[in-house]
Amino acid sequence: MNADLKIQSRKIILDTIRKAERIARIDLARDTNISQATVTTLTAELIRQGLIEEVSRDEETERSQRGRPRVDLKLRSAAFLVAGLKIAGLTISVVIVDFEGKVVHEYKHQMDQSIFQADEMIKQIEMALAAATASVDLPVAGLSAIGIGIAGVVDANRGFVHWSPLFKKRNIEFGTQLSAALKKPVFIDNDANLVAMAEQYLGLGRNVTDFIVVTIESGVGMGIVVNNQLYRGIRGCGAEFGHIKVQLDGALCRCGQRGCLEAYVADYALLREASISTEQANDASPEKRILDLLADARRGDPTAQSIVRRSSRMFAMGLSNLVNIFDPQLIILSGERMQFDHLYAEDVMASIKDSIVQIDADPPEIAIHKWGDFMWARGAATFALHGVTDIALRGKVEHVV
Amino acid sequence: MNADLKIQSRKIILDTIRKAERIARIDLARDTNISQATVTTLTAELIRQGLIEEVSRDEETERSQRGRPRVDLKLRSAAFLVAGLKIAGLTISVVIVDFEGKVVHEYKHQMDQSIFQADEMIKQIEMALAAATASVDLPVAGLSAIGIGIAGVVDANRGFVHWSPLFKKRNIEFGTQLSAALKKPVFIDNDANLVAMAEQYLGLGRNVTDFIVVTIESGVGMGIVVNNQLYRGIRGCGAEFGHIKVQLDGALCRCGQRGCLEAYVADYALLREASISTEQANDASPEKRILDLLADARRGDPTAQSIVRRSSRMFAMGLSNLVNIFDPQLIILSGERMQFDHLYAEDVMASIKDSIVQIDADPPEIAIHKWGDFMWARGAATFALHGVTDIALRGKVEHVV
Repeated sequence: MNADLKIQSRKIILDTIRKAERIARIDLARDTNISQATVTTLTAELIRQGLIEEVSRDEETERSQRGRPRVDLKLRSAAFLVAGLKIAGLTISVVIVDFEGKVVHEYKHQMDQSIFQADEMIKQIEMALAAATASVDLPVAGLSAIGIGIAGVVDANRGFVHWSPLFKKRNIEFGTQLSAALKKPVFIDNDANLVAMAEQYLGLGRNVTDFIVVTIESGVGMGIVVNNQLYRGIRGCGAEFGHIKVQLDGALCRCGQRGCLEAYVADYALLREASISTEQANDASPEKRILDLLADARRGDPTAQSIVRRSSRMFAMGLSNLVNIFDPQLIILSGERMQFDHLYAEDVMASIKDSIVQIDADPPEIAIHKWGDFMWARGAATFALHGVTDIALRGKVEHVV
Repeated sequence: MNADLKIQSRKIILDTIRKAERIARIDLARDTNISQATVTTLTAELIRQGLIEEVSRDEETERSQRGRPRVDLKLRSAAFLVAGLKIAGLTISVVIVDFEGKVVHEYKHQMDQSIFQADEMIKQIEMALAAATASVDLPVAGLSAIGIGIAGVVDANRGFVHWSPLFKKRNIEFGTQLSAALKKPVFIDNDANLVAMAEQYLGLGRNVTDFIVVTIESGVGMGIVVNNQLYRGIRGCGAEFGHIKVQLDGALCRCGQRGCLEAYVADYALLREASISTEQANDASPEKRILDLLADARRGDPTAQSIVRRSSRMFAMGLSNLVNIFDPQLIILSGERMQFDHLYAEDVMASIKDSIVQIDADPPEIAIHKWGDFMWARGAATFALHGVTDIALRGKVEHVV
């Protein structure tokens, strides 16, 4: 095997161990399609490098097997510590995880503004990391890498932010700048991609090769996993589900274009209609007004129902388009905001099933998985773990604890 | 290396030779990331198996190199002959190609109906193959495999036709039935997928890892190539671009649903509007009426222009949605029907660029590639060539000429 193939095989082995948590060499050979002899060689190297370790099976399992004790392989949790950050609104959610992905600490850093120059954002991140590590008596230097998820259009391969609502300017080499400031590798991606990565390694996507995650927060995001790999597009601006057009010359979107799905589904889209047609107090906060609108709809107010219903139907139309294009095994609807229950409602699911190409086979499963900011941050941490693994496999191991 | 990895490596080598046509071992090692020693071993096996052969470089190239003559590897054209069929309307287009993919013969078989029971279709295919092979003095038995492209929803992995306009019934094990009748392997897929495969190996997609093909015939089709692989979806019904919804509760589609892209772009969609609003002779053939409508539009008739314009705009909206989801390197618009020039017009391209997520980077290239039924058939033949290659690599070589 030449060097590249060897790195790739070791990566496949680590990835398979990461997904399985604990796995015997023989099963590892079977799952990876790599010969047992090669698995033995490569895992010995990974053990020497401190990335994985042997653990004996617990007593009970062991006894049910034949004579000598069986051992499993697992990732060595102490190999690296990384931090995953989700930055949104006025909050940076930080999660510190070990090499196995186990959460060591969670921390929320509050900010007093939500849009920044790049250097201001770097300061906020430094503060967040300092506070998060201090509370578990760890120096920031103890972190091997940082993963970051933000809204917007990000070219993850080169840490380049084409555009993000976080930043005052477009086209920022943010990955490079932050990496220079922190003196450690930084991995940055669109946050919905990182939710997909969290689902892939920690969530509902663990045993699925092709799935789609749709995130619903103030905007609508999407992550695509095809053939076990996150698909980002060539320039880093694929999976822009919120900006697919669902109506020719339709409602105005925040992005300046017309007819985007987001312009029918997002908070501001609902409020735009509510401000016209209902008797809401316009001095209330947007959050309060959204809650009022949804409460009105539940109470049976026809105008509020009409507003909410169109939003749900447009959402169902967008999702059915994804099914007609990807025909995935699974669609995961992900978001923590309980008030958007109208988008998860049974009639939305029924409408999707009616709008996809009809064949005599079950439609893809649609799962609803509501989780909070820390799970998004764990997706960012998973991205960082993959990044440090790549670096370690290429022989530039640093910061092994 | 264990058996599976070895088969995979040999497949990668054959695939790389197929794309390159002629390639030296040293370049093969570089392009495949397989070590030179392994390339030497595996190509020796492939030569022994009769799948590839050595050719010396032509004099001129040779002289510019150092001393001893350099040799390239190429596929051995005589290894297999396969037939690719495109079945549409009243015609079966047959192309016979050798293992290199070079066209040996092209043949068109005419039928007097366009919708069949499975056994009737098998008879038509047998007649088409008999006539096509007879005209080059070849027995049908000389063909190692058959590739077939049809419209509809096909699960290519198991040759299962969920639905096709060719068949009176749904849910047909057509691949299995035809393979039993012909006594040779049959590979069947949705025809737009096979156009994508033709582009991947013979056309504009040769040096592109991620691209999309959109086909415009009586319906609208699509093929997706992601990470160098055709993406079909889990149940075989991905890439249904013609049935993504572009209008909530929109125009009625042939599929029975409302608002499908096809219901705005296909012939019948244009004619539905023309029959209402223009003074066309309704006893003319649909082809004649379409040509008249498009001629009227070109002449400046406002109603005809309005009909054509909406169709173009809906098409542009659908394409921009594909860009927002896939962010591909390249979109290929493929179809032989010159009358659909309005869908390829400059304002369509401009409208796509205005409707995609705006970043400061060039949008994906959109190429127009009009080719006829025989090129679709060559896609089917390419699929068959991949199929026989797989069989040969698994050690069950048959029909080597």
